[in-house]
Amino acid sequence: MKIESVDFFYLSMPVVEDIGDGSQDATLVRVRAGGLEGWGECEAAPLPTIAAYVCPMSHSACKPVKASVEGMPLNEPDDIRRIAEKVHANSFDLLQADHTLSGIDIALWDLLGKKLGEPVYHLLGYKQAYPKTPYASQLFGDTPELTYKKAVQSRKSGYRAVKFGWGPIGKGNASEDAAHFRAAREGLGAEAYLMIDIGTVWGENVATARERLQALKEVNAYWLEEPFANMALGPYKQLSASGPRVPLAAGEGCNNYVQAAAMLDYAGLGFIQIDTGRIGGITPAKRVADEAAAKGITYVNHTFTSHLALSASLQPYAGLEKDIICEYPVEPKQLALDITAGKILPDTNGRILVPDAPGLGVEVQLQNLKDYIVDTEIRINGEMVYQTPAL
Amino acid sequence: MKIESVDFFYLSMPVVEDIGDGSQDATLVRVRAGGLEGWGECEAAPLPTIAAYVCPMSHSACKPVKASVEGMPLNEPDDIRRIAEKVHANSFDLLQADHTLSGIDIALWDLLGKKLGEPVYHLLGYKQAYPKTPYASQLFGDTPELTYKKAVQSRKSGYRAVKFGWGPIGKGNASEDAAHFRAAREGLGAEAYLMIDIGTVWGENVATARERLQALKEVNAYWLEEPFANMALGPYKQLSASGPRVPLAAGEGCNNYVQAAAMLDYAGLGFIQIDTGRIGGITPAKRVADEAAAKGITYVNHTFTSHLALSASLQPYAGLEKDIICEYPVEPKQLALDITAGKILPDTNGRILVPDAPGLGVEVQLQNLKDYIVDTEIRINGEMVYQTPAL
Repeated sequence: MKIESVDFFYLSMPVVEDIGDGSQDATLVRVRAGGLEGWGECEAAPLPTIAAYVCPMSHSACKPVKASVEGMPLNEPDDIRRIAEKVHANSFDLLQADHTLSGIDIALWDLLGKKLGEPVYHLLGYKQAYPKTPYASQLFGDTPELTYKKAVQSRKSGYRAVKFGWGPIGKGNASEDAAHFRAAREGLGAEAYLMIDIGTVWGENVATARERLQALKEVNAYWLEEPFANMALGPYKQLSASGPRVPLAAGEGCNNYVQAAAMLDYAGLGFIQIDTGRIGGITPAKRVADEAAAKGITYVNHTFTSHLALSASLQPYAGLEKDIICEYPVEPKQLALDITAGKILPDTNGRILVPDAPGLGVEVQLQNLKDYIVDTEIRINGEMVYQTPAL
Repeated sequence: MKIESVDFFYLSMPVVEDIGDGSQDATLVRVRAGGLEGWGECEAAPLPTIAAYVCPMSHSACKPVKASVEGMPLNEPDDIRRIAEKVHANSFDLLQADHTLSGIDIALWDLLGKKLGEPVYHLLGYKQAYPKTPYASQLFGDTPELTYKKAVQSRKSGYRAVKFGWGPIGKGNASEDAAHFRAAREGLGAEAYLMIDIGTVWGENVATARERLQALKEVNAYWLEEPFANMALGPYKQLSASGPRVPLAAGEGCNNYVQAAAMLDYAGLGFIQIDTGRIGGITPAKRVADEAAAKGITYVNHTFTSHLALSASLQPYAGLEKDIICEYPVEPKQLALDITAGKILPDTNGRILVPDAPGLGVEVQLQNLKDYIVDTEIRINGEMVYQTPAL
């Protein structure tokens, strides 16, 4: 079959707040071929992502993503890899292209899985999917007291692993941060995995990060996530060699395989976190999972939005038995919940498993999304180059 | 003074060809403050770059670039650095943001230089600007015969350094590539610097690159540029350690300082090439120049478009006396030539010097650009969020 159409949908909550919650809007991608539909989601700013799909060509290496996708054959996994290569060759000077490609690549895997009657992880070469322990991913409270209450709530909800991130953390002094770390641990109890996410606030400042290591060690932090800007290899490496040792996690900002490979090689990470909605989709994410496994670095998904994004983010390491932790969006906005009919829910042991169904195994329910549609039009010299597709 | 307005202009040749010539369109940025205007240019796809300026906020780290620029104070160089930091903090999940910031940062330096009556390189801390030997940057001919003719023409035009790139190179077999290399050397004569640019065609394929090293050595290539994808640190490092040794040049695809730092640390480069229109402007480019100097790696500008971009790209290393080579756009499209009134031309010794005038020292002539304007409109829920500004 050949790719017949690619449609982008810009969805949003009625109000987008200035908080570290990426589930407030969404960029959905629908690909049609051979009478089937595949769906993907870009974890990206919708308008620039759509613009990168439809923009006029600037030169031979700065073409719209569209130029490398529509009309291409889609019959086997290598066809998807060829499309990714074509996008990279045709659009490597178009920075946003990887974020645009991400949702397309995910939709292509979903579509191919449906056609071949196989879950995506089978097509990736995994015979079996292993259960993952979901960690509840949430924002720090504005005060240590509120962080404590959120931690207690997470424990009551049955989560055995919880990540706190963003909000006030890293923006105040070391003792303020330490108070939040302790509040989180006290609320969770001693047994739970506790991860801490700095959200790159320290930029390249190794000294600031070092001041927090003792407190992180005292609360037995499972990892310290994104203390620095993505790709700041030097600061990551220096911190990873500092005591007391706290394992570092990073990588969600990587927008292609070679960046993630650089992080694996030189950042001193214990965990590599990949968002399939940013790195270019499932295709490069699987390469990262293979490389991480070969290097003894644990692969973890990065997912803060819908269960469509969650399924896509689990596929690349579904078959890695030892990589048992997964990010699970525990307090997404209603938009993210409304994107799929089915949900990926914890079993009685509190673990989750990638759906055992063709493609991504979650169905997008477009009819429930019409209230979220952001009506968008782009005109170039009077010609409409993008208009929100009819639902 | 405070930043009063930031305007983006999308310009294009009437026809954009599918060739490796980035001068076929342009993204110009005009910043106004205190009764003055500064100008910058993004070396980027215009539509996504504009979209990244005006898009609605997705979350606290995915804001439009606009949110960090308008109304900010602009009185001293540190104000520009603070704006860059703010953009990175507010927009690090918006991939295209660095390309958008690039033109703004350049315009801010131009504007501040005009206000303070100083050329930008003075504001960057250089007391003196040193002349650079321009290399003519041009595409390979479609055949070795055409490459030879272009090389002869370059020699007749007085260029002592010539780079050939893109076109057919790297896409055929090793002997076809070698025929082009030899044709270039024969046309230029033995004395000229000859650089070869592969335009990332080999992706991550070290073996293919190694097959060309002997031929590159035989024509005494001054450098081999971008054999691999930007940030493919492993392949670069492996090739740099292979014989016969040919110095490697890369970096034009870096869209922030930390990526360039990674290339300096781990790619085995002899030359780091920075496009101020992509890396986030003059601010991060100067940091790269400082770091490269400390590491003994030669800094070179990457410039294929206008003399506005050329001036901006020269400022970050204008004061580095030993880094003598600069890229010079020798066959840009008429649009790129029409952007500025004055041009940066070789002196009687064939060398060029950054203008000794306030700001970037080149004046944009907007009235000559109206035929190139690409009329663009972006509407979100019926509201016009971008419209081509009146000239």
